[in-house]
Amino acid sequence: MKLLEDKIRKDGVVKEGGVLKVDSFLNHQMDIPLFDEMGKEWKRLFADAPVNKILTIEASGIGVACIAARHFGVPVVFAKKARSVNIDGEVYSTKIESFTHRRVYDVIVSRKFLGPEDHVLIIDDFLANGKALEGLIQIVESAGAVLEGIGIAIEKGFQPGGELIRGKGVRVESLAVIESMDVESGVKFRRQPGHS
Amino acid sequence: MKLLEDKIRKDGVVKEGGVLKVDSFLNHQMDIPLFDEMGKEWKRLFADAPVNKILTIEASGIGVACIAARHFGVPVVFAKKARSVNIDGEVYSTKIESFTHRRVYDVIVSRKFLGPEDHVLIIDDFLANGKALEGLIQIVESAGAVLEGIGIAIEKGFQPGGELIRGKGVRVESLAVIESMDVESGVKFRRQPGHS
Repeated sequence: MKLLEDKIRKDGVVKEGGVLKVDSFLNHQMDIPLFDEMGKEWKRLFADAPVNKILTIEASGIGVACIAARHFGVPVVFAKKARSVNIDGEVYSTKIESFTHRRVYDVIVSRKFLGPEDHVLIIDDFLANGKALEGLIQIVESAGAVLEGIGIAIEKGFQPGGELIRGKGVRVESLAVIESMDVESGVKFRRQPGHS
Repeated sequence: MKLLEDKIRKDGVVKEGGVLKVDSFLNHQMDIPLFDEMGKEWKRLFADAPVNKILTIEASGIGVACIAARHFGVPVVFAKKARSVNIDGEVYSTKIESFTHRRVYDVIVSRKFLGPEDHVLIIDDFLANGKALEGLIQIVESAGAVLEGIGIAIEKGFQPGGELIRGKGVRVESLAVIESMDVESGVKFRRQPGHS
């Protein structure tokens, strides 16, 4: 998606160690008109999928998921990273290893909000090692729901997550795929036929 | 806001110990058309305020804040509950005590995204003891920004937060204020003149 690629080129900052900071528009401060265009593009890409629910994970997936949900006309469920005393009843749960936070999270979704009748689109801001997505896919499978696909804002194409998840036969649509990046020369994007 | 009150009456569940579960539409599964109407109502209530940024806190504030932001035409910044290795540079920080999770969080906002030029509307899903809001207000003050007001989805009027925050001279607009609630008789709302 050219709009997102241009935004990453303009406002993203490449740091040592494969870190891309996009906190000025994606995962700390959030650019809502950009999210709206991203939601439109996911809807165009998944036009043929009978999505009735969007699943994301707290915290930085929630904003893009909610704005995207307007274009699909469906509710959003966000997976929670720790057991809250306000969540009762049964939950689907899994463990997710976070590289960013260097720890393992318990991740839960209430059984009330995901079941065999659901056709799920997973939305998240980043795809790198794919650990978060593997956890969310496992939750969708536990629920007996149909996974229609995954919409990602920024995929780090040089990390193994994209190949790993697509290798499971899951349709992944990343709006920007970074082929390579470094501090001096910036970011290079993968061309994606059929993407705007 | 009658629409939200009706939704709480219909789908909210009152539990022992002053707990109101609204996880089917507000803070786990999220009803986006409802959020859209809530955003419209906050915009109507704060029509005279020159808001240029919405501030919220992860995780359950992010959805309502993002959908509301469309009506204000402004970006959203969400305060983060733990220091991430991906946040560099200087941050505003404060400590917030969570009754729900029975712990104290460090809460941070990057200095890049909040400053003296900002006119801030804080949006959050719940107001009970007011601890989260006190923390966010302190961050706005640290930034030298102008706090235009606070928009809350559900205020527990029988807990001290609302009086505490309004006592500081801050304008708080809660779309539904619960006067009292119990397991048998359900929820009673406070009438609010000028609210839809």
